[in-house]
Amino acid sequence: MDKNQLKHLIEVASGRAPADLCITNCNILDVFNKEVFQGEVYIADGMFAGFGGPFFPEAYKTVDANGAYMAPGFIDSHLHIESSHLSPAEYSRLVIPCGTTTVVADPHEIVNVCGVDGLDYMLKASEGLPLSVFLQFPSCVPATPFENAGAKLTATDIASRIDNPRVLGLGELMDFVGVCNADDAVLEKIMVAKNAKKVIDGHYLGLLHGLDAYSCAGIANDHECATAEDLRARIRRGMYVLLRQGTVCHDLLNLLEGVDSKNAERCLMCTDDCQAKTMLEIGHIDNNIRMAIAAGVDPIVAISMATINAATCFGLSDRGAIAPGRRADFVLLSSLDKDMKVLDVYTAGSHVASSKKYLVQTQHVSPENVSGKMNIKDYEAKRFALKLKSENVRTMKILPGSVVTAMSQAKVQLDENGIWHRNGDDIVKISVVERHHGTGNIGIGLLEGFGLKGGAVATSVAHDSHNVIVAGDSDKDMEVAVGELVRLGGGMVVVKDGKVLESVQHEIAGLMTDLPGEVVAQKLASIQKTAREKLGIHDDIDPFMTLCFMSLPVIPEIKITDMGLFDLAKFGFVPVELDI
Amino acid sequence: MDKNQLKHLIEVASGRAPADLCITNCNILDVFNKEVFQGEVYIADGMFAGFGGPFFPEAYKTVDANGAYMAPGFIDSHLHIESSHLSPAEYSRLVIPCGTTTVVADPHEIVNVCGVDGLDYMLKASEGLPLSVFLQFPSCVPATPFENAGAKLTATDIASRIDNPRVLGLGELMDFVGVCNADDAVLEKIMVAKNAKKVIDGHYLGLLHGLDAYSCAGIANDHECATAEDLRARIRRGMYVLLRQGTVCHDLLNLLEGVDSKNAERCLMCTDDCQAKTMLEIGHIDNNIRMAIAAGVDPIVAISMATINAATCFGLSDRGAIAPGRRADFVLLSSLDKDMKVLDVYTAGSHVASSKKYLVQTQHVSPENVSGKMNIKDYEAKRFALKLKSENVRTMKILPGSVVTAMSQAKVQLDENGIWHRNGDDIVKISVVERHHGTGNIGIGLLEGFGLKGGAVATSVAHDSHNVIVAGDSDKDMEVAVGELVRLGGGMVVVKDGKVLESVQHEIAGLMTDLPGEVVAQKLASIQKTAREKLGIHDDIDPFMTLCFMSLPVIPEIKITDMGLFDLAKFGFVPVELDI
Repeated sequence: MDKNQLKHLIEVASGRAPADLCITNCNILDVFNKEVFQGEVYIADGMFAGFGGPFFPEAYKTVDANGAYMAPGFIDSHLHIESSHLSPAEYSRLVIPCGTTTVVADPHEIVNVCGVDGLDYMLKASEGLPLSVFLQFPSCVPATPFENAGAKLTATDIASRIDNPRVLGLGELMDFVGVCNADDAVLEKIMVAKNAKKVIDGHYLGLLHGLDAYSCAGIANDHECATAEDLRARIRRGMYVLLRQGTVCHDLLNLLEGVDSKNAERCLMCTDDCQAKTMLEIGHIDNNIRMAIAAGVDPIVAISMATINAATCFGLSDRGAIAPGRRADFVLLSSLDKDMKVLDVYTAGSHVASSKKYLVQTQHVSPENVSGKMNIKDYEAKRFALKLKSENVRTMKILPGSVVTAMSQAKVQLDENGIWHRNGDDIVKISVVERHHGTGNIGIGLLEGFGLKGGAVATSVAHDSHNVIVAGDSDKDMEVAVGELVRLGGGMVVVKDGKVLESVQHEIAGLMTDLPGEVVAQKLASIQKTAREKLGIHDDIDPFMTLCFMSLPVIPEIKITDMGLFDLAKFGFVPVELDI
Repeated sequence: MDKNQLKHLIEVASGRAPADLCITNCNILDVFNKEVFQGEVYIADGMFAGFGGPFFPEAYKTVDANGAYMAPGFIDSHLHIESSHLSPAEYSRLVIPCGTTTVVADPHEIVNVCGVDGLDYMLKASEGLPLSVFLQFPSCVPATPFENAGAKLTATDIASRIDNPRVLGLGELMDFVGVCNADDAVLEKIMVAKNAKKVIDGHYLGLLHGLDAYSCAGIANDHECATAEDLRARIRRGMYVLLRQGTVCHDLLNLLEGVDSKNAERCLMCTDDCQAKTMLEIGHIDNNIRMAIAAGVDPIVAISMATINAATCFGLSDRGAIAPGRRADFVLLSSLDKDMKVLDVYTAGSHVASSKKYLVQTQHVSPENVSGKMNIKDYEAKRFALKLKSENVRTMKILPGSVVTAMSQAKVQLDENGIWHRNGDDIVKISVVERHHGTGNIGIGLLEGFGLKGGAVATSVAHDSHNVIVAGDSDKDMEVAVGELVRLGGGMVVVKDGKVLESVQHEIAGLMTDLPGEVVAQKLASIQKTAREKLGIHDDIDPFMTLCFMSLPVIPEIKITDMGLFDLAKFGFVPVELDI
């Protein structure tokens, strides 16, 4: 808001100039006193001017809210747009009708692939959308030293973008070990954010007694909370806790057990990873709010978590409430109960969604520097051959519905050259193929419990470095699968008998596509069905979601990267063979 | 906190280096979950490192709190140090034992006298004290155009200091008329603070329907709230409301009627104007807390108002809670009830007060540029002669215990030259003598209900421009009184029969002194007694406090400045005579 805007807003608020818009006949949520009052709201230049009274005789346009509840637009305090496979413009199109008007997005995935170019693309591609997209600069690129990512970012890189007004601070500081060890490189990143007076997002998974050291660094919040005890311990140390409910993680109900009327103001809402299908069928932050209400939380308190609390945590003093001088981001709601529906959505005073319909033309931004990014060397079939010195092996055993694996053991079949071949068991090969620098790195392990029989599935979405991950029992099919991803510039693929059965293109950094969200949801459902029906992947497993977490070495117990098989307990690489 | 400090703090929090201090056996206030827990607290480099556990084997020093309650140090969210007549160092000495460890001070008085030099002196004189003194840049210098102050400050002056880390923003924006009129000069000042992302303090006295326009400017808080309705209206618009209880204003109990568990987080505590006697005999912010508890507020909620809520409002994320990474400003309390006593006070981990005793050597800073400031021209007796064209006059009638006056009427006695002379009634002359620029300005009016008979009292503390104000019935005594103030470089004086009966020196800008607080309190009590006993000033009137508000033209109904008699209802100057 510059001086002229302020001047005009005051003129409107003083009744000396007409408002642009007046919403009448509504039940207004006051998130500060935590009460509802009846009245009208005046808007000018995209901002709230006031609640009327003798001073507001005129507005160019009046909208009768018919007694609907008017709440501030919802804020998602932590998410990765990339996880939806949608471009920012499409993300806006899907979440705005759910009432989400501001997101704090950590472009961790695309920055792991494209470095600072990834951040710049996300800034550009999200500019001017109805959805306000703020970014956190990813703090851990690469996420671990045990894999090759597309970039290695230091404090200097962070400093180059930290002053951007749309960069709120440092993204989830998942290297809590580095923080607690006071590693210089980690502390340097923290100091960049602290000196710029920006917000540092947390991601703490360790033992509670390490939390003191972690919070010394001034971590503002944490979304990696699983229990009431975890929640209260973080709040005690001054962190905000995010009640997470997305497609992947469902923590909200567990966490609510630790929330009461006294600490609710320290709670925020987030989805973290949310797919298009979830947004279309279940909702976004509105779903978190409905669930909290259904669990007994005062509706105004639940909505405050998704509005003013988030604005306070992130220093977004221009939003989060229906109050004079703030951005006119608001929703009209059918009710304040567990069946609450988002009727209409306004951002900066503009009507952007009605009855779940997006009212804005979607803009498309060229991916340019972040297009493709499939720099893979030497992936012919023979490179997927697994030569072993023993038939007693470690396997990565899938635990359905979880991103954790169990380290299991098996006796497998080797040919006369020591080459692994599929026998009748439920074990296939899993490979991570480095795709950023053409190193030719391929890590190979054995995956148990996937169900795949004959063929291969592959994807270029594989946390956190997003190399290509491919599972299969045919070296040729694995080659074809990787080749198809190279051709597409990234995506998902199902191959059988040397032929591509189905594929999905993720042309933006191999992570996202600019197709409409409905199409993305439909394509994803279709390729999942194909993978299950044609390749036999178990029904209780999401073929691609399961794969994409198999490469995350910081999650127990055993994972695979382009550098090999990683055992978290040993915190190092291990051979596939057990007895060497 | 720089990187090395952070590194050391994490080392301590991780048990790899000893803490400086461990407080054991205490009941720790968690202002986030709003609960008390038993434990120990470790401190290093003046900051909290954590709560112990298996990781904290060592501390250089251990203090047994004997089960006392440990709370964050108290924050006074709005005050004027000058109102105490104490230097910042002496202010610290008096309020630290009360548990106040941080103050947000608006140096409105000294800046009205000395301009930016006044701010710079306050910064320098408050540097390195046990008390953390943050300043707000006074927004209204002069307070009105109807008087001559020592400086006229514009947005450019504000911009010259706004980036100082100890300047939190813009001081009380008392020109609410200017804001609501969208005056350019006022908006320019607001934009300086907004662009620097600093806090703008409010001061709104107008009708509630003007509050929308006022809050459009992003005013963060207001301390000029008198009723529950006022409080809720401000909170609804996103302002924090300060529960004020000092020597002069007593709003806390009235305001608590509008506070409930839902909006308490939007309330802060302040004293505004507090004299040494009050601090010594009643207390400071600890008194606000005791009063709130006695009125039924949950003790942890009351303490939160004076700690974390204030830290949140002012963006002081380094304090306000007992949590790792924050400044170790804390108090040990005897209890959490209405008889709560402050036993010990620590700031930045140092023990600074115990059993009401200050443990730190008081530093004295030379006033230099702000010394004296008595630039008065032509104040000989004849200039106090009041020549009138009519014996029917307006008088300023004192309303005991209030800063408001009534406009009253009287018939007075004039000599053959039309010169006013005292008759048997309770009317004396009151004059404001310009002291900043040697203009020779003297405004003269008539004061009713003061009780003074024979003599004069004068002070250089006279809101808001702090010219000299003198009341008396003898022109010679008025001259002697002003002359004595010139000699002292400011202060208070009582004169009778041409002789100074008693005086108090305020050598710092004519507002403050560097004498110990106990001496200041004793001297003030003594000169008040002398004024009452020797000059007959009524017992229900504080002679100097009453005088110092007689020059504030924005307060009803009629006031006097160096430019003349001001009628607030007419918003202009009026003659003393009624019928001309």
